[in-house]
Amino acid sequence: MTKIIKISKRGELAPDSPIRKLTRFAEEAKKEGIKIYHLNIGQPDLKVPSRIRTEIRKVSNIDYLPYTNSQGTKETLLSYSKYFHDIKVNYSPKEILITFGASEALIFAIAAICDPEDEIIAFEPFYANYLGFANLVSAKIIPVQLDAQENFHLPSQNKIVGKITDRTKAILFTNPNNPTGTVFRKYELQTILDIAKKYRLFIISDETYHGVSFKTKAISFMHLAKDLEQQQIIIIDSLSKRYNVCGARIGAIASKNLEIMSAVNRFAQERLSVGFIDQKIVTLELQNSLGDVKKITKIYQARRDAFLKTLEGELNIKTLYPEGAFYAMIKLPIKDSDEFAKWLLTNFRYKNETVMVAPGSGFYASPGKGKDEIRIAYVLGEEELKKAAKLLAIAVKQYNNSQHLRESK
Amino acid sequence: MTKIIKISKRGELAPDSPIRKLTRFAEEAKKEGIKIYHLNIGQPDLKVPSRIRTEIRKVSNIDYLPYTNSQGTKETLLSYSKYFHDIKVNYSPKEILITFGASEALIFAIAAICDPEDEIIAFEPFYANYLGFANLVSAKIIPVQLDAQENFHLPSQNKIVGKITDRTKAILFTNPNNPTGTVFRKYELQTILDIAKKYRLFIISDETYHGVSFKTKAISFMHLAKDLEQQQIIIIDSLSKRYNVCGARIGAIASKNLEIMSAVNRFAQERLSVGFIDQKIVTLELQNSLGDVKKITKIYQARRDAFLKTLEGELNIKTLYPEGAFYAMIKLPIKDSDEFAKWLLTNFRYKNETVMVAPGSGFYASPGKGKDEIRIAYVLGEEELKKAAKLLAIAVKQYNNSQHLRESK
Repeated sequence: MTKIIKISKRGELAPDSPIRKLTRFAEEAKKEGIKIYHLNIGQPDLKVPSRIRTEIRKVSNIDYLPYTNSQGTKETLLSYSKYFHDIKVNYSPKEILITFGASEALIFAIAAICDPEDEIIAFEPFYANYLGFANLVSAKIIPVQLDAQENFHLPSQNKIVGKITDRTKAILFTNPNNPTGTVFRKYELQTILDIAKKYRLFIISDETYHGVSFKTKAISFMHLAKDLEQQQIIIIDSLSKRYNVCGARIGAIASKNLEIMSAVNRFAQERLSVGFIDQKIVTLELQNSLGDVKKITKIYQARRDAFLKTLEGELNIKTLYPEGAFYAMIKLPIKDSDEFAKWLLTNFRYKNETVMVAPGSGFYASPGKGKDEIRIAYVLGEEELKKAAKLLAIAVKQYNNSQHLRESK
Repeated sequence: MTKIIKISKRGELAPDSPIRKLTRFAEEAKKEGIKIYHLNIGQPDLKVPSRIRTEIRKVSNIDYLPYTNSQGTKETLLSYSKYFHDIKVNYSPKEILITFGASEALIFAIAAICDPEDEIIAFEPFYANYLGFANLVSAKIIPVQLDAQENFHLPSQNKIVGKITDRTKAILFTNPNNPTGTVFRKYELQTILDIAKKYRLFIISDETYHGVSFKTKAISFMHLAKDLEQQQIIIIDSLSKRYNVCGARIGAIASKNLEIMSAVNRFAQERLSVGFIDQKIVTLELQNSLGDVKKITKIYQARRDAFLKTLEGELNIKTLYPEGAFYAMIKLPIKDSDEFAKWLLTNFRYKNETVMVAPGSGFYASPGKGKDEIRIAYVLGEEELKKAAKLLAIAVKQYNNSQHLRESK
């Protein structure tokens, strides 16, 4: 192709998703008849809750498919407010806006806070798409490294404060964390809150996995913040993971800060509205959901144990046991997980099966980081996960042998 | 509220939608029991096509609600490709990406082309939300004025070229046009194409209303562009208007430019996917839709005539008859349509009814423009539209009298 006109720098720099960039290799393997265990993407394999199925049946009687209010339907906003109330986070409907998943909520939050070149501090490894959201609106993610030796808990306050510049506008925090599954403690949230207060920063708190924690209960920033502090906090939420409705594309942004919510409402007016059907079908579930979240949390804990114990046994390694969400960032005895993850799909087959993982590097902004790590999502049944762990162990050994052979040539 | 931390400039500057900013006044009037004729928003009142209703019934049997491919499901992409083929626009599925309505398609297009402060030329009055999309990603809309005296057709080539600077990256073009309903002629598209070629600009062609034209058939830029020229063209589409499915939030961006589509696919990976159910239910309709579009076009033409003839008779004025879409930009004998549009909702009542319109100023980037214009969408039945036109005429007279009284005090 002759390059006629240059596209934007932001277009050139938009990162590939480490979770999705290998999809075409997976599709090719499937065409060959290979079975793939998908550990790459945080998409629950669990069925949608029965209340949502009932609502889908009801919605099939509609004659019209209209836009809704840009902020969200009254019913969905009331239900979200009820959900927040149930988890002891006090947001009225007018302090909430319904978004196309947490993705749009994060784009709106960053855009409302940052002008081009402004900076947001985030703790790496972080959810890979944060880089893309910031890039889309020309803001920058400044990484503070979490240490696997510390079970990915917060470093000293100095290490965080050292990254603050004149352009720093916010701290982006994920609890329970994706990709590490870390559940941050109350004193860690207090540290972040103290820094935000002192340096006048917003806190963008991604609480998509709230409720999915195994031993230590994850708390919300809204449980800690008092009065005016609450205006520095923007909560990001999504229904995708807690209720197995990834394809419904419903999330929310909430804040007590009227200026932020005014800006976000104007951004939302521009894109008219979130899906009518998707909002309809989640409304009832949101009002009655805490029981469902408890159920799935037990399932994920058992899956975590099934997968990690099998992998530890097969590879004779020790792994970290995540405290929440349904991810694990696993250090493997390999040199280049980008190459390894691709090789799994293009070369490795064991009894006509292979496994798909997300390479670690995409979860870091710092170059060279994550090369010996993969992120897995335990979103298969326990027996399937045990098989996938065995397969992964066989692959690691075979990959290292074949690499050894290649290098000794 | 104490202002703790400043939000972004882009957040402060995000424009209010002229179509939606008066919604709360409308809601208050409804609470009083006032019936409102909604001419403010381009949301068809027509029922969803029967094929879509059938698909909604089918989808109610699903057990899972997964993410789809970021680019769109294979079926939806194939159907969109078939639709483009039917209108003689040649795009294969890999040259298309499914978006959350035309809104997201426009944001992606602007982001892929523009870095902050880059400029896009657009012809005003234009679809108001273009200003918001550009603001979200810190690009600028540079207006070229269309003249009502010329029935909102293109000005001389010099007037357009005069706006081109070092930062100009694209021309944004809407055909059939919203808010004016203008259907641009082949020679006008050729003018734009010649300028784009000479000055190496992209053309973002919003063809949301393609097919909805009354006498002169609207053509696509893809019908004119040859070979390499096609790589300068980005087509924006939406299903909302042609198939009465505004609430389904399905649109598309298509281009032969591999770099643009690569950037857009990476932007799309970040937000994971468009709604699963919405994609499912539109797929069949897309494959068989041209007949439906013909039917609704006839309906809109009759509605245009019903509304405008009534209004002309009642006010003794002459209006322009739009050639496509379902909008009219109407010059009224009033001084301030922003105030007038609000007054309609807050003060004017005739037999317990009023009418809601979009004030003209929001469709212009140039300050002071559009003050004596309103945009109406003829999305009610003919009899309702006649009533709404009569109501509007009564309101104009009453408003001018009351203003006269206020001014003479």
